[in-house]
Amino acid sequence: MKSVIMGIDLGGTSIKLGLVNISGQIVQSLEWPTPKNKSYHEVIAAFERMSEQLLRESSYSWRDILGVGIGIPGFLDFSTGSVFEVVNLGWHQVPLKEELERIWDVPVLLENDANAAALGEMWTGAGKGASHIICLTIGTGIGGGVIINGDIYHGANGSAGEIGHITVKEQGGRPCNCGKKGCLETEASATAIVLKTLEQVKGASGLLKEEYAKQGNSITAKSVVELAKLGDPTCQTIIADAGTVLGKALANMCYLLNPELIVIGGGISYAGEILFKPLTESFRNFALPRVRENTSIVQAKLGNQAGIVGAASLIHHYDLLES
Amino acid sequence: MKSVIMGIDLGGTSIKLGLVNISGQIVQSLEWPTPKNKSYHEVIAAFERMSEQLLRESSYSWRDILGVGIGIPGFLDFSTGSVFEVVNLGWHQVPLKEELERIWDVPVLLENDANAAALGEMWTGAGKGASHIICLTIGTGIGGGVIINGDIYHGANGSAGEIGHITVKEQGGRPCNCGKKGCLETEASATAIVLKTLEQVKGASGLLKEEYAKQGNSITAKSVVELAKLGDPTCQTIIADAGTVLGKALANMCYLLNPELIVIGGGISYAGEILFKPLTESFRNFALPRVRENTSIVQAKLGNQAGIVGAASLIHHYDLLES
Repeated sequence: MKSVIMGIDLGGTSIKLGLVNISGQIVQSLEWPTPKNKSYHEVIAAFERMSEQLLRESSYSWRDILGVGIGIPGFLDFSTGSVFEVVNLGWHQVPLKEELERIWDVPVLLENDANAAALGEMWTGAGKGASHIICLTIGTGIGGGVIINGDIYHGANGSAGEIGHITVKEQGGRPCNCGKKGCLETEASATAIVLKTLEQVKGASGLLKEEYAKQGNSITAKSVVELAKLGDPTCQTIIADAGTVLGKALANMCYLLNPELIVIGGGISYAGEILFKPLTESFRNFALPRVRENTSIVQAKLGNQAGIVGAASLIHHYDLLES
Repeated sequence: MKSVIMGIDLGGTSIKLGLVNISGQIVQSLEWPTPKNKSYHEVIAAFERMSEQLLRESSYSWRDILGVGIGIPGFLDFSTGSVFEVVNLGWHQVPLKEELERIWDVPVLLENDANAAALGEMWTGAGKGASHIICLTIGTGIGGGVIINGDIYHGANGSAGEIGHITVKEQGGRPCNCGKKGCLETEASATAIVLKTLEQVKGASGLLKEEYAKQGNSITAKSVVELAKLGDPTCQTIIADAGTVLGKALANMCYLLNPELIVIGGGISYAGEILFKPLTESFRNFALPRVRENTSIVQAKLGNQAGIVGAASLIHHYDLLES
């Protein structure tokens, strides 16, 4: 009896593979750095070698695999499994699903990584039991996934949920990679938080200054979150400001979608109440009672397992739907 | 054979009833002023008398009626047909569907009027053939309807599509009836356009000044649209500014929903290119190519029939779905 799903989380820095059982638990996993030139063929070769190693180290074989789900940091056509573009990997128009199904001879499903994370949270994380969800992942950028009637919503060309580029600051917003200014992601992502911290580090004292020196006149988003939790006021204010921006943007989204649940994940979400308190306050200020009264805002639960479990959830979800 | 649908458009100033055939054409209609005290029981009594008159003046009887669809300017539970609140009529918690089905003995379906208009446009107007639509009605307020996979999307408590209260101007926005400031509806509705025109009429000359005097030192939104079309520069600028605001708000909505079609109706939409050109430009400035390349923006087609046809479309749509 086929009993596990392979989930693959493809990122610009690393590739994670995991075997996930039908309850959504990771039973075995593996992480390799993404091949240096990131080419399509080298990544496929890495997938092959990693899957062999993963199975060899586990008690499973290909016979046990229900299918392979893959989360991709880019645009794709969910129905054909053809990848349009992955900017970070330099991929354009690659038939990933087709090629992997030929190699592995099991069903392969691809999804944008933020969408996969949203489905994963609905399967076994913070979204369990809900069927109208907006899921945000606050990392280097800000990814979003929209769940409607229990299913990922793709929109006209698969771009639904690309909320990182909502304009939130028309005047004086920072320039974004996308060419616009003042995008949600230039104001509230981990990257934005690091930039703001670097701008303010000169005036700062104590913990932040020490950590900045220790990291060779630099700072990571993870450290900003940790310092905020240790009580550093500069880091706390910067994260709180991001929360305020996010809360307003989410309020505006709720007028359109009136979701029952908003799930917020990614590295910055580990700041907990330092992020969530101002975020929720701002959300309440901008969303009318009628629109927000049935909407909860919660922290994602899958943490760094979100990528693998989210990818595996594709097979679980669509397998269930078709049976 | 049952062959027509009764559509009812309930407004704060008038009630419109119409018989609509299964191709979506109005074959007979009737408009009465809304009863002065607007009470629930008087409105129901008006529905009864109006429906009798409508049928008497037509070649149809109740035997021919597939069902009655009603568009309501308020919040309701679509599944039970219970109306939570209609602020303009002072209604709270009324079992409208239940009561009318008892009186008429035909299926009755209720829907928020903006949602019904969206469904109507999909049936026989500008949204024909599309199944992922955002529909805006720019009137006294700004109503919205979201069509997902060919169906009205209600969200967690029926508030999906209430986009009139998206915050578009945080600094210096006008106060809104809702208690917030700078809502889409305080910046770009017919009401907003009238207010802005009144503010600028003193510095204006020619057509606008004349019309303002003729209307007893006042102006209607309809006149502002007409004057803009006749070339009045103040009215043109005011409508264009509303278009710019709408374009940006719609761009932000597209990141979330990536619709294939945006349909814009209501009185202000009659301004045509004066509204649509700046609106489309602003939309293109704020929406990334990937997100907007499969999205068209079009003017609604049902015009002042939208209310009746939209209401009737409820019966057509759900009858089809269930058969």
